[in-house]
Amino acid sequence: MNKEKITSLKNQFAEELFNRVIPFWEKYSPDPENGGYFNCLDIDGNVYDNRKNIWLQGRQAWMFSKLYNEVEQKQEWLNLARSGIEFLREHAIREDGRVYFALTKDGKPLWMQRKIFSECFYIMALAEFSRASGKTKYMQEAKEEFELVWDWSFDLSKVGQPVYEGAPAMSSLAIPMILLNLIEEVAGEQWADFSEQVEDCIKRMLLHVHEDREIVFESVAKDGSFLNTIDGRLLNPGHAIEAGWFLQHWARRLGDQKLSETAIEMVRWSFKKGWDTEYRGIFYFLDSEGFSPTQLEWDMKLWWPHNEAMYAHLLNYSITGNEQDWQDFEMVTDYSFNHFSDPEHGEWFGYLNRRGEVTHRFKGGPYKGCFHVPRSLFLCWKLLCELEKRG
Amino acid sequence: MNKEKITSLKNQFAEELFNRVIPFWEKYSPDPENGGYFNCLDIDGNVYDNRKNIWLQGRQAWMFSKLYNEVEQKQEWLNLARSGIEFLREHAIREDGRVYFALTKDGKPLWMQRKIFSECFYIMALAEFSRASGKTKYMQEAKEEFELVWDWSFDLSKVGQPVYEGAPAMSSLAIPMILLNLIEEVAGEQWADFSEQVEDCIKRMLLHVHEDREIVFESVAKDGSFLNTIDGRLLNPGHAIEAGWFLQHWARRLGDQKLSETAIEMVRWSFKKGWDTEYRGIFYFLDSEGFSPTQLEWDMKLWWPHNEAMYAHLLNYSITGNEQDWQDFEMVTDYSFNHFSDPEHGEWFGYLNRRGEVTHRFKGGPYKGCFHVPRSLFLCWKLLCELEKRG
Repeated sequence: MNKEKITSLKNQFAEELFNRVIPFWEKYSPDPENGGYFNCLDIDGNVYDNRKNIWLQGRQAWMFSKLYNEVEQKQEWLNLARSGIEFLREHAIREDGRVYFALTKDGKPLWMQRKIFSECFYIMALAEFSRASGKTKYMQEAKEEFELVWDWSFDLSKVGQPVYEGAPAMSSLAIPMILLNLIEEVAGEQWADFSEQVEDCIKRMLLHVHEDREIVFESVAKDGSFLNTIDGRLLNPGHAIEAGWFLQHWARRLGDQKLSETAIEMVRWSFKKGWDTEYRGIFYFLDSEGFSPTQLEWDMKLWWPHNEAMYAHLLNYSITGNEQDWQDFEMVTDYSFNHFSDPEHGEWFGYLNRRGEVTHRFKGGPYKGCFHVPRSLFLCWKLLCELEKRG
Repeated sequence: MNKEKITSLKNQFAEELFNRVIPFWEKYSPDPENGGYFNCLDIDGNVYDNRKNIWLQGRQAWMFSKLYNEVEQKQEWLNLARSGIEFLREHAIREDGRVYFALTKDGKPLWMQRKIFSECFYIMALAEFSRASGKTKYMQEAKEEFELVWDWSFDLSKVGQPVYEGAPAMSSLAIPMILLNLIEEVAGEQWADFSEQVEDCIKRMLLHVHEDREIVFESVAKDGSFLNTIDGRLLNPGHAIEAGWFLQHWARRLGDQKLSETAIEMVRWSFKKGWDTEYRGIFYFLDSEGFSPTQLEWDMKLWWPHNEAMYAHLLNYSITGNEQDWQDFEMVTDYSFNHFSDPEHGEWFGYLNRRGEVTHRFKGGPYKGCFHVPRSLFLCWKLLCELEKRG
């Protein structure tokens, strides 16, 4: 790529991140009365429900801590992060370490999932905020909570998920994937202390990668073999692409060339399979054998798979220098900026139909907050800065 | 309406029901090895997952019992119903009366919901099969199970649903609605024995009907007042239309003129609000205040709301003789036959995008079985026969 192209893209990402996306959340999400963030925000920032979804509270506190740590030590960013952290520590966690899925605006419990993801985003926020605030007690809390989550993760009956005789023992990609990402967060430079867990997560994730078929499955049997059921055949291309770059980060840290090559291919295969050649954009779900997925939203184009794909392709390109990786990065970036971005109000739309038309006007909802868009823009921007320097 | 039009429609409904829909399930759903029905059936009847979803097992056993009782005493229909009943009684119900949501093909538990709907469809099947088989013990079992369900229905903590401090006490339309329908099934001609429960269900349902705004809400506060949250604003027009005809059946049984008028309006308001004036068809979900529903599938056109609307409008017309009711019946029937019906393979498609294009090629899935299509075709056909006789 020529340097001008890289510089122009770098500026485009910075403009989108710092002038359109972050200001939206700074302006509309803070709850000055109770702390934490409103996360159900309409197109123009209007709060259409005041529930507080904990995945999103944790992710937003993480994001602002990250920006403070890696972009600029702005006091507003630290304050915004702290507001989320205090709300989370005060209301979201139960005495036994379980973390709620949703709270009322003033912190009363609304719902608890029989899963471990609320806990994960809670940990992620504490760890990054610990670095931002310089307070080690938050990191200590993050590590203690991580130990609990590690114990629960591979036996969800410990968080109340019932086990039924007929249900095949399955391995889910989401769990080792998020744990691996969490280790990156809580371990920081001391990741060698977690080398056993890292190895375990990577091994578990690779069970989902079927090289012979160039497919990454969401759920496989415990030994990694294919399950010919609705769940076993399910593909979530955006999720597999995200798993690819998570693994790539570790491959580079570990200096593992083979893992790096696998991670590169996971992104390429999943993007190829997930790309809608008729209307463009990445399908949300597919069935590996070509049946209709049973999810009603399978053919929709969601913001976050596109966010993951932008960064994953750019990361691939930064390693391979391969022209096709660059073209895929440009293709998905072009689609994303043209379809999801909202220059008028800021932040991106989240949901398009197959044709790429906006179907949901809100910017924040129970599963969409201040996370995938700014994380992806931030990671791409950082990498474009690096590529620009490399020349 | 002129008599020829009625006769021609009657024939169209009979053709669709008896030559295209029922044969599909007769041919592809039976599991000769384990009993019960395969319910995940692809466009051409191919089984793409062999799980057995209990809502659908119960509903199909009910449907074939109903056809046997009210159309023709075909031995095949009774046998098919019996196969479902035996599978259900042997595998689906637990000692404490809880009924599973899904089983493996040979009846091992796969999942249990913290809800009461599996139980309801289990009861419905037993009651109708009792009439078909002449065996009173099934009715006895249905009534015993109904007593349990009645006890659980208004305190779901009894089926394991947790209660959280911040969650507003809400009333859900679905529960009194299905209980009222169940009373119709288990009480038969002896419905007067259930008059207290009937009255209670109707009272609870009417809390959801806000006449001043011409809206039927899915969830309201315990006193019936509007909740300005994502859940409180949710409209499900097809469900409200179904509630309308359920209430109409009871209004006629009770000779309650006022209730009959309310039921007529519930159908008309919900259809008007739910009809997509741009692409036709009934939206799946709406938000009463015009926000985007958070359900990703809100703008899809599902088969069952259209099935409910066909019968509800025809029922309205049969009572009012009103030209607009007839036109609405014709409009939704025309849309449905043109978009959902599959003359080549039989049974209807279940899922269309907003534009009316088929998005899911399967005929049966975890939530779509042998129920809404044949029930609606059967009820319309019966009513058209009656209208034809009336002249």
